[in-house]
Amino acid sequence: MSSNNGIILKKHIDPVEGYPKVGEHFGLEERPFNLEAAKVDEEHPLLLRNIYTSIDPYIRNRMRNPKHKSYLPPLDLGQVIPNLTIAEVVKSAVPEYKTGSHVIFMSGWEEYTFVPKDAMKVVQVISNPYNLPLMTFVGALGMPSQTAYVGLKHVGKPKAGETIYISAASGAVGQVAGQLAKSMGLYVVGSAGSDEKIAYLKEIGYDAVFNYKNESVHDALPRLCPKGIDIYFDNVGGETLDAVLLNVNFYARIIFCGAISQYNNPNPYRLKNYTEIVLKSITIEGFIVMNLIPLYQEEYFREMPKLIAEGKLKYKYDVYKGLGSIPEGLLGVLQGKNFGKALAKIADE
Amino acid sequence: MSSNNGIILKKHIDPVEGYPKVGEHFGLEERPFNLEAAKVDEEHPLLLRNIYTSIDPYIRNRMRNPKHKSYLPPLDLGQVIPNLTIAEVVKSAVPEYKTGSHVIFMSGWEEYTFVPKDAMKVVQVISNPYNLPLMTFVGALGMPSQTAYVGLKHVGKPKAGETIYISAASGAVGQVAGQLAKSMGLYVVGSAGSDEKIAYLKEIGYDAVFNYKNESVHDALPRLCPKGIDIYFDNVGGETLDAVLLNVNFYARIIFCGAISQYNNPNPYRLKNYTEIVLKSITIEGFIVMNLIPLYQEEYFREMPKLIAEGKLKYKYDVYKGLGSIPEGLLGVLQGKNFGKALAKIADE
Repeated sequence: MSSNNGIILKKHIDPVEGYPKVGEHFGLEERPFNLEAAKVDEEHPLLLRNIYTSIDPYIRNRMRNPKHKSYLPPLDLGQVIPNLTIAEVVKSAVPEYKTGSHVIFMSGWEEYTFVPKDAMKVVQVISNPYNLPLMTFVGALGMPSQTAYVGLKHVGKPKAGETIYISAASGAVGQVAGQLAKSMGLYVVGSAGSDEKIAYLKEIGYDAVFNYKNESVHDALPRLCPKGIDIYFDNVGGETLDAVLLNVNFYARIIFCGAISQYNNPNPYRLKNYTEIVLKSITIEGFIVMNLIPLYQEEYFREMPKLIAEGKLKYKYDVYKGLGSIPEGLLGVLQGKNFGKALAKIADE
Repeated sequence: MSSNNGIILKKHIDPVEGYPKVGEHFGLEERPFNLEAAKVDEEHPLLLRNIYTSIDPYIRNRMRNPKHKSYLPPLDLGQVIPNLTIAEVVKSAVPEYKTGSHVIFMSGWEEYTFVPKDAMKVVQVISNPYNLPLMTFVGALGMPSQTAYVGLKHVGKPKAGETIYISAASGAVGQVAGQLAKSMGLYVVGSAGSDEKIAYLKEIGYDAVFNYKNESVHDALPRLCPKGIDIYFDNVGGETLDAVLLNVNFYARIIFCGAISQYNNPNPYRLKNYTEIVLKSITIEGFIVMNLIPLYQEEYFREMPKLIAEGKLKYKYDVYKGLGSIPEGLLGVLQGKNFGKALAKIADE
């Protein structure tokens, strides 16, 4: 008898409750599983063996108590926590999906996943003309990179010669946003919270960087952006946004991508400089990548794998080993401990 | 000997200093003037007799101490305060501007204005095919209406059937924004601070209105906007914006036009719900009408005079009588005492 263990939601958590606790809010559930006897049928046409799964901070939001509204549906108690995964098709009732082929699907944090009939349309068979490593499809090509790409193109509307500032620049979104902006001819400024991260940002081509733990954003921005900021890729919200509002140029675009510093904060920072939005004709736009990616999918999968294959887009991974390491991985992501993109390797390729 | 009295800036005022004081910061200066002897020449090709002048709140901003940056240049001490004015050409050194014709110009708060050579390109001779009253050109067709028009079209991108909420709805911008939105098939909700203003909003076609002094915006918005808010025309900023952020729909557009409640506030309200911008893919856009009006000028002057002539755009004026009444008018505007568009009649037509 093999197993199909999973990481499940055990208790909902309030948005203001701080970090979820392993064991109390979520944790490993051991589930025996007879792989050989498992059958696919019309209701569940595919059985997937999950290989690499993504660990993304937005999952915190889906763990919330359902009485709080949000842009994503809350998870049910006992439900396996879903996240973008690259998997191998091990059993198939549909000829279009061959056994042994690789697919991307929101199967999530478990060893094996039955795909229900009505989810079949979002099971994406990967094409891999550059023979990229499998983890690339939930890593350098995954949702945070899609967020960087779409945010930059759709909201940022970058023009060569402009200055972009990126907060949480070494994070999964920031590191890609910076390299993309650089490839478009922008002057790229970033911040992060450790010397190691700062060194990495220099390595991947940021023009100017600062450690926000050593220098206040209020001091660093005028110093590092002498021509002012044209685009701000906001991955943190809070006081940094307030400082940026005082340092942007006319017609600046603010890509409001996340507010990590506020997600787990019972007393969110209150913004004071928003009248600058009028005074400088600023546009601030929030977006949810899932809703925009259809607009950009074709150009994304045309441009990005090529950049990666040519070594023009460096990418850092934090690979957690085994399903059981995922809770630690999620907490690391939420607390900003990770360097690059957090993934878990659930099974061998 | 005739006079050319003017309202001049006497002392700069800090942004946090509250309302400007008549006599201390600005006031009437008596200036004798020999109209008959006055000559136009190459340096000053036109002499204008000012008839109606606009009284706009943004002037407060230009009265600030020059050490504070803003989108508009500060005024010099002793300078006549400029504002959009309709005037008669009384002397002309250029054949294109005939004596007796009417022009719009930023001549400002004085009886007569010499137009310097390098300002000639912005002296606009009016065409008046519908024979509208002269005050219309600095009133219903003036900058606040241009603000309403441009904000609605450029930022709001309204679609029939959507819900728009307009704060300071009986103000110079709001009353036009509401009627334009109504003419485009939107459901129009507005707020104002007196029963008289509320009655006026109903009269000009608002679908739902509330007096924010009687009902909190937090209660009124869910009650009056059962389908949520798609567009918010923000004329006030502050706590109202925070309440709106909790009541907007996905992909809402916020036309960030002014923050009257914050202009004179030494302790500006600090926004707390801005993470909704991400959660609901909201766009907030500030704009300065002067920079956008060239994009819309032709369609504006094609559509608006017709709407006015047909009685489809009702417009309320507060006409202050005589140059000496302007300081009182400006304070009224800044303190929200005015009903509609504030103008001063400087001279007879």
